[in-house]
Amino acid sequence: MKLTEIKSPDFLQSLTLKELRELADEIREFIIDNVSKTGGHFSSNLGTVELTIALHYVFNQKNDKLIFDVGHQAYTHKILTGRAKDFPTLRKKDGLSGFLKYSESPYDVWEAGHSSTSLSAAAGFLEAKEQGADIGEIVVVIGDGSIQNGLALSALNYLGSRKNQKVIIILNDNNMSISKNVGSISKILDRVRLQRSYQFFRKLTPKFLTKFKQAVSSYLHGGNIFSAIGFRYFGPIDGHDLKELIRFFRFAKNSDQSIILHVNTQKGKGYGPAERDRLGNWHGTSPFNPETGEPLTPMAPGKVSWSDGMGGLLLEEAKKDWDIIAITPAMIPGSGLLRFQSELPGQLIDVGIAEEHAVVMASALALARKKPVVCIYSTFLQRAYDQVSHDVARSNAHVVFLIDRAGIVGGDGSTHQGTFDIAFLSHLPNMTIAAPKDLEEAAGLLAYALHRHSGPFAIRYPKANADLSSGEVPDIPFGSWEVVLPLERVNVVTYGPAVLEFRDRIAKSGKEIGLVNARFLKPLDEKVLQELSGSRVIVYEEVVKQGSLGMQMLSRAEAAGISLDFDFYAVPDIYVEHGEVDAIKKELGLNIEDILAKY
Amino acid sequence: MKLTEIKSPDFLQSLTLKELRELADEIREFIIDNVSKTGGHFSSNLGTVELTIALHYVFNQKNDKLIFDVGHQAYTHKILTGRAKDFPTLRKKDGLSGFLKYSESPYDVWEAGHSSTSLSAAAGFLEAKEQGADIGEIVVVIGDGSIQNGLALSALNYLGSRKNQKVIIILNDNNMSISKNVGSISKILDRVRLQRSYQFFRKLTPKFLTKFKQAVSSYLHGGNIFSAIGFRYFGPIDGHDLKELIRFFRFAKNSDQSIILHVNTQKGKGYGPAERDRLGNWHGTSPFNPETGEPLTPMAPGKVSWSDGMGGLLLEEAKKDWDIIAITPAMIPGSGLLRFQSELPGQLIDVGIAEEHAVVMASALALARKKPVVCIYSTFLQRAYDQVSHDVARSNAHVVFLIDRAGIVGGDGSTHQGTFDIAFLSHLPNMTIAAPKDLEEAAGLLAYALHRHSGPFAIRYPKANADLSSGEVPDIPFGSWEVVLPLERVNVVTYGPAVLEFRDRIAKSGKEIGLVNARFLKPLDEKVLQELSGSRVIVYEEVVKQGSLGMQMLSRAEAAGISLDFDFYAVPDIYVEHGEVDAIKKELGLNIEDILAKY
Repeated sequence: MKLTEIKSPDFLQSLTLKELRELADEIREFIIDNVSKTGGHFSSNLGTVELTIALHYVFNQKNDKLIFDVGHQAYTHKILTGRAKDFPTLRKKDGLSGFLKYSESPYDVWEAGHSSTSLSAAAGFLEAKEQGADIGEIVVVIGDGSIQNGLALSALNYLGSRKNQKVIIILNDNNMSISKNVGSISKILDRVRLQRSYQFFRKLTPKFLTKFKQAVSSYLHGGNIFSAIGFRYFGPIDGHDLKELIRFFRFAKNSDQSIILHVNTQKGKGYGPAERDRLGNWHGTSPFNPETGEPLTPMAPGKVSWSDGMGGLLLEEAKKDWDIIAITPAMIPGSGLLRFQSELPGQLIDVGIAEEHAVVMASALALARKKPVVCIYSTFLQRAYDQVSHDVARSNAHVVFLIDRAGIVGGDGSTHQGTFDIAFLSHLPNMTIAAPKDLEEAAGLLAYALHRHSGPFAIRYPKANADLSSGEVPDIPFGSWEVVLPLERVNVVTYGPAVLEFRDRIAKSGKEIGLVNARFLKPLDEKVLQELSGSRVIVYEEVVKQGSLGMQMLSRAEAAGISLDFDFYAVPDIYVEHGEVDAIKKELGLNIEDILAKY
Repeated sequence: MKLTEIKSPDFLQSLTLKELRELADEIREFIIDNVSKTGGHFSSNLGTVELTIALHYVFNQKNDKLIFDVGHQAYTHKILTGRAKDFPTLRKKDGLSGFLKYSESPYDVWEAGHSSTSLSAAAGFLEAKEQGADIGEIVVVIGDGSIQNGLALSALNYLGSRKNQKVIIILNDNNMSISKNVGSISKILDRVRLQRSYQFFRKLTPKFLTKFKQAVSSYLHGGNIFSAIGFRYFGPIDGHDLKELIRFFRFAKNSDQSIILHVNTQKGKGYGPAERDRLGNWHGTSPFNPETGEPLTPMAPGKVSWSDGMGGLLLEEAKKDWDIIAITPAMIPGSGLLRFQSELPGQLIDVGIAEEHAVVMASALALARKKPVVCIYSTFLQRAYDQVSHDVARSNAHVVFLIDRAGIVGGDGSTHQGTFDIAFLSHLPNMTIAAPKDLEEAAGLLAYALHRHSGPFAIRYPKANADLSSGEVPDIPFGSWEVVLPLERVNVVTYGPAVLEFRDRIAKSGKEIGLVNARFLKPLDEKVLQELSGSRVIVYEEVVKQGSLGMQMLSRAEAAGISLDFDFYAVPDIYVEHGEVDAIKKELGLNIEDILAKY
């Protein structure tokens, strides 16, 4: 059938099991074909094809609530709800979102980019249903990584005590979050996954299951955390067997109690390199040649991603100083820590999707005179805002934060933009925030943060590529800005790699414009601020204006009586949608060429 | 013995069991006597006297890490570590902190005011120990409410998988967090608490226990969530029986594996009214007459706490509009919801200590066209910063936040000050923030937020008393400020009850000073801002300057070319310590009389 002609999932009802299986094959081929061209989330989508078909086959999406945790595994859902034709625009500006999106489809009933919100969402829908809202079945699809997050666990604890509210929880267990999972529950699931004794139930009909559900349930319960909390639990179920999936989903639908269905799926199913990937390299991908698995646009020579660059710098420091302990919340590949993991596994802790725990743990490590480094994306550090304040900044604990994907991130869109970190960190007392223009400066800042500083120190950098480091580690005085181009009547103040772009473009244009690298966002360099006095100052940033460098400069200038004529360029007071970074910047008035043309 | 002469807990070793019991009685009497004079946390401290004595008896605090979750139950610990003499200054400026405090004692190895950080702290110390730090036993004391928080659960999940690291977890189960506990784990603990079959083990020696630990452990495991995660679990243990406590603590110390000891304690033990309290009224108390239990300074006639006042307004609205659903994270008494709970239990959800879950659940309720109202303290909303952004503001969900204890809170100190909420909310797109000067204005704002608004709307108010409401519900145009005293060459712009104090003091002084009630912190009233043009503007706030009203006004004035001569009065870039609110304000330069004297 033509996937692009699907309007709604209603057609599934008329298909035979054989046809459903053929549909699964077509969808899988479609995903491989499309994502190889556009890039996007890959392995998790290949793993949930049958699961999603079975869900739409059994549940009526008219008033049922089908809640996907995170929603980056919902490409099949998008295809079945009439969006296959939009896949060529995936993650592009004004194109199809990589996540669920209220504005795209009424079938998208829960929107998320951060993990582990789905069970709390279900709790809300359940309460609304109890209070009279027209809601049918409430079904949650959540991964084995996500369900171990604190938010999800507290929601499970809550839901388990609401005996009169029925929720169906599909535990999509692929034994990975993005890379290999950690935690006690993972170990429990490992054991369950290996249970072969369950096989004989496969032949039973749902009717029989219903009849003997007490027996089955208690048989399967042994040592299981979910039954301990009070949920009926069935599993493991083969997540690529449509017949079995449909049977269990019907059973759950007909049941009047909450239930957890533990479904085993294989990440990357149907695409060899992704099936074999244990590191998480195929979790998300840029465009690639489906024949070879090679990226279509390989890294340019002399370049490296900021993630890998910073991971490399941290590794070098950690080799020399055994007190350094890197902590990551399930982001070893994303944060450029694969080499660190293989070379210094004893100095790296993956805590799973537990950002809050990572930060509190870092505080205790600092108290014990270790040197914890929390490697985290800007958008995920939001989750630990209270811990950064209450457990780190308040006691001035020596914790280093390497904040990846700061600024506009592009394709992941509104849930992932790193446009708030300066706003939510700069108002915290004792906090130092820095942003390097290149990897050499990053090395200097990191060395300072680790060896010469004694409080919280955040270093932020974008989702972009940098020039390979020369290995140089410059000495960077604390709180100092760098005058890159001599001060003139018009001066640009910015930070991060934007410094380099301004430098090159100003040089090329021949304009008399000064340039300051404000590599410290907190504290500010009061001396350079004074030197800017009387000039027109262009402050350029990829974060919201509130709490930004610009606002801090304005505040300081006002307090110190420094006269400056400011032109602020920052992200406006909106959530920035997905798209190519350059296109987004252009639209937000943050294209550097356009800005310079005005002066 | 004289408690005020204790220098360190070393003396405990020389006491007999009988003497230890006498000490417990003395400490209990001391706490009742002192807290009745100073006010402070009460019930939890009376409940943990024997527990704390036994801990200090068994564990050597020289390099053992004794971690109290939250630390408001640590008065006995303070007494045993040489701070009894400081109790008359409890919670006063420069006096004894109500929580653990690094600066007070080397015995305070973990400092917290927000719950549920203790297990993550233990994880950090365990890692440091594994990496060579000189650390002995690591012992966590955590309540049955706190352990159900997401952060604690994710830490448990983490710790359960670190089989080579030994931690002793004392689950201090008093069946309350502040008020009655909720959640699946509570129900499990309820069942365990009732197990009487365990009694016969009481007579056994630790040696015997060790020998038969497998049997004992598995016997006690049935259905227990902690054993499901992989911990050895013993309980329930009588938390007021010193002999049993010491025996089990020794057993845990001698064991080489992690262990959870489930200890039953009674909140308020030894003081009748507190023992009988099921609502949480004796969790914290102001000074009271120990004979009668009556407060020494009863509420002045015509006054009500802001908490009770707002709880009352919400109750009135909820009676008329059944779509309103109040959500509280374990703060029914604190947030003034006791009457709401008794009159409209079906429209109130207590989710336990789960701020993040509360906010996400609210988002789903809003999607289902209910009207969720999250009632929460300013300092605890910090925990849900990401959820407010990612799950509410981003999708412009209609969630109302009633933010209690905003501004300087006094005795609870640095972990509890509500000095950041405007900074962390005002940079979020789609967010509305308001602060009423009195309960009538609060009623008007609440009515607008519930019935005429369609996005997130936060109403913040202080820990203070207000005049009883007249019942009036004024119509307040969205985003409008109120010119309280006609604009002059010098004008005060402020919000909340400070408006009333400025009004009264300006009137009394006869000075020609204008006064604006900036009841909307976001958005600003651009019209009034314009009218202030050319004047000297005193902006007065009890929050950090970054992101404050003042900074937003400065930013808007700069952008709109409005010339204003600002004098900002705000909390400086520090964590504000405990003390009487007036004394703190005086020190921070926020005494209104002092400020007006300058003009």
